[in-house]
Amino acid sequence: MTKVIIIGSGNVAQHLIAAFQNSQNLGAEIELVQVFSRQTGSVSHLLDLSQITNDLDTLAEADLYIIAVSDDAIEVISSQLPFKNRLVVHTSGSVPLKVLDDNNRKGVFYPLQTFTKNKAVDFRTIPICLESENATDYQLLDKVAKSISDKIFAINSEQRKALHVAAVFVNNFTNHLYQIGQEICQEHQVPFEILNPLITETAQKIMLLSPSEAQTGPAKRNDNATIEAHEAFLSNENHLKIYKTLTQSIQENGKKL
Amino acid sequence: MTKVIIIGSGNVAQHLIAAFQNSQNLGAEIELVQVFSRQTGSVSHLLDLSQITNDLDTLAEADLYIIAVSDDAIEVISSQLPFKNRLVVHTSGSVPLKVLDDNNRKGVFYPLQTFTKNKAVDFRTIPICLESENATDYQLLDKVAKSISDKIFAINSEQRKALHVAAVFVNNFTNHLYQIGQEICQEHQVPFEILNPLITETAQKIMLLSPSEAQTGPAKRNDNATIEAHEAFLSNENHLKIYKTLTQSIQENGKKL
Ligand SMILES: NC(=O)c1ccc[n+]([C@@H]2O[C@H](COP(=O)([O-])OP(=O)(O)OC[C@H]3O[C@@H](n4cnc5c(N)ncnc54)[C@H](OP(=O)(O)O)[C@@H]3O)[C@@H](O)[C@H]2O)c1
Ligand SMILES: NC(=O)c1ccc[n+]([C@@H]2O[C@H](COP(=O)([O-])OP(=O)(O)OC[C@H]3O[C@@H](n4cnc5c(N)ncnc54)[C@H](OP(=O)(O)O)[C@@H]3O)[C@@H](O)[C@H]2O)c1
Repeated sequence: MTKVIIIGSGNVAQHLIAAFQNSQNLGAEIELVQVFSRQTGSVSHLLDLSQITNDLDTLAEADLYIIAVSDDAIEVISSQLPFKNRLVVHTSGSVPLKVLDDNNRKGVFYPLQTFTKNKAVDFRTIPICLESENATDYQLLDKVAKSISDKIFAINSEQRKALHVAAVFVNNFTNHLYQIGQEICQEHQVPFEILNPLITETAQKIMLLSPSEAQTGPAKRNDNATIEAHEAFLSNENHLKIYKTLTQSIQENGKKL
Repeated sequence: MTKVIIIGSGNVAQHLIAAFQNSQNLGAEIELVQVFSRQTGSVSHLLDLSQITNDLDTLAEADLYIIAVSDDAIEVISSQLPFKNRLVVHTSGSVPLKVLDDNNRKGVFYPLQTFTKNKAVDFRTIPICLESENATDYQLLDKVAKSISDKIFAINSEQRKALHVAAVFVNNFTNHLYQIGQEICQEHQVPFEILNPLITETAQKIMLLSPSEAQTGPAKRNDNATIEAHEAFLSNENHLKIYKTLTQSIQENGKKL
């Protein structure tokens, strides 16, 4: 049995706990032995109290410690661990491996997905990006990751940074465009829900076509009459600025091809 | 039987032809009697040649003529129709109803989706936005639309314009952000496909949460250290400009709440 301990009780920690419990029920050779949470109450709906601690000094022995706390707390927590030379990883897309304390062997266990509390996800479809300092540790991370997901990638810190920045574009920024769409609908008394099938199809399309093949619309067609009509229609200065910036970027792209 | 004729043979025309044929097979009281195409070959894989014409003067009699041609050809085609006082609609999101010729009764039959040739869509889930000049014509449009879709909306030209602009944000601009994500991945030798589950989840999330509830990321958290690291990481001037514009917009939004 490979023993795993999770440190943290937020979004990622809770989804990881559920995923390990699931895989354990299905007979995986991975055992979630303990969870650390500052407030034991945060995870008491998921685990037996005997498996929860709020004191780092009482952490049990394990093959792998997964630190799933806020980015800026990773360094401090890793330096407070009361043991040496064990494998300690964090789950962040933007924090380098080297931030972890030198007392222990370092690694990264980054699930590339956006988690929401109380919204179940199918963990088996979530890519997990792994990094470690040596091959033996990588093998252990790989084994643990495979027990909960079918999509495991070896990704170094530089590549992970690229993925994280790309994720900001396709997730955070895309969601902001949805919000602008909603604001435009509200202003003109149209239900935003009418756009739901379009939003779904736009995301599905790029599973089949590359984004550049899938690109349509007035900017791509250089349809200046429609672009001008849209710009005249947009009464919100900020919406207009974003419309112009992205239209120009699509048009510049067209010129390069 | 309500008789329908489609004018055009592009993306939208072909998906409409398939949808009407489907509903006819399922017993709907709608009959697709004829299709006009400049080149009869464009739709000969879908219909019997006897049902295709390339001459507007040989158009049969019908209850509804659906003009599904490029936006800038709608006006000309509608003025060339060799009959009067029949119901003629176009399928465009951005063209006003009044562009149609005065010789006939006017309407709009706008399917709000992004169509790709050879990629099947489930038409029953596609919102169809209807507009007409009088209630009788609206009832006919409603009946025809319901034969192929479960989501019918009465939308006037002003509202349709808002929907079309909102669609540019959630579809064209979102797809462009996917492309930037891909460019960043390529530059750093990471497979873009790792982001697929994130893209899917981002789109699915707003079916449950409003975009403002679903917003996450460094801009939303005002995490300036991460924002600065991302800006330093982006070597492409255009990517950087879009990063800054959208980050600022998310931060301004946060201040308003
Ligand atoms: N959210 C996502 O979608 C996502 C996706 C992939 C990776 N990640 C990464 O996963 C990690 C955790 O993110 P999250 O979304 O789960 O965060 P979260 O929901 O905000 O939870 C943060 C956790 O960190 C704990 N914490 C914060 N400061 C602490 C400190 N000084 N000492 C001890 N514990 C502390 C919190 O404890 P309290 O509850 O007691 O405050 C909480 O359990 C981060 O590195 C993040 O970048 C997040
Ligand atoms: N594509 C979408 O996702 C979508 C979604 C909703 C609504 N719409 C609207 O639906 C309409 C059709 O769009 P589409 O995507 O189907 O366009 P498309 O695939 O580019 O097809 C355009 C059609 O218009 C015909 N056409 C162009 N100029 C013509 C002219 N002067 N005389 C006669 N026929 C002419 C073309 O004939 P040839 O093949 O012979 O050139 C072709 O059949 C537009 O109003 C569009 O705004 C499109």
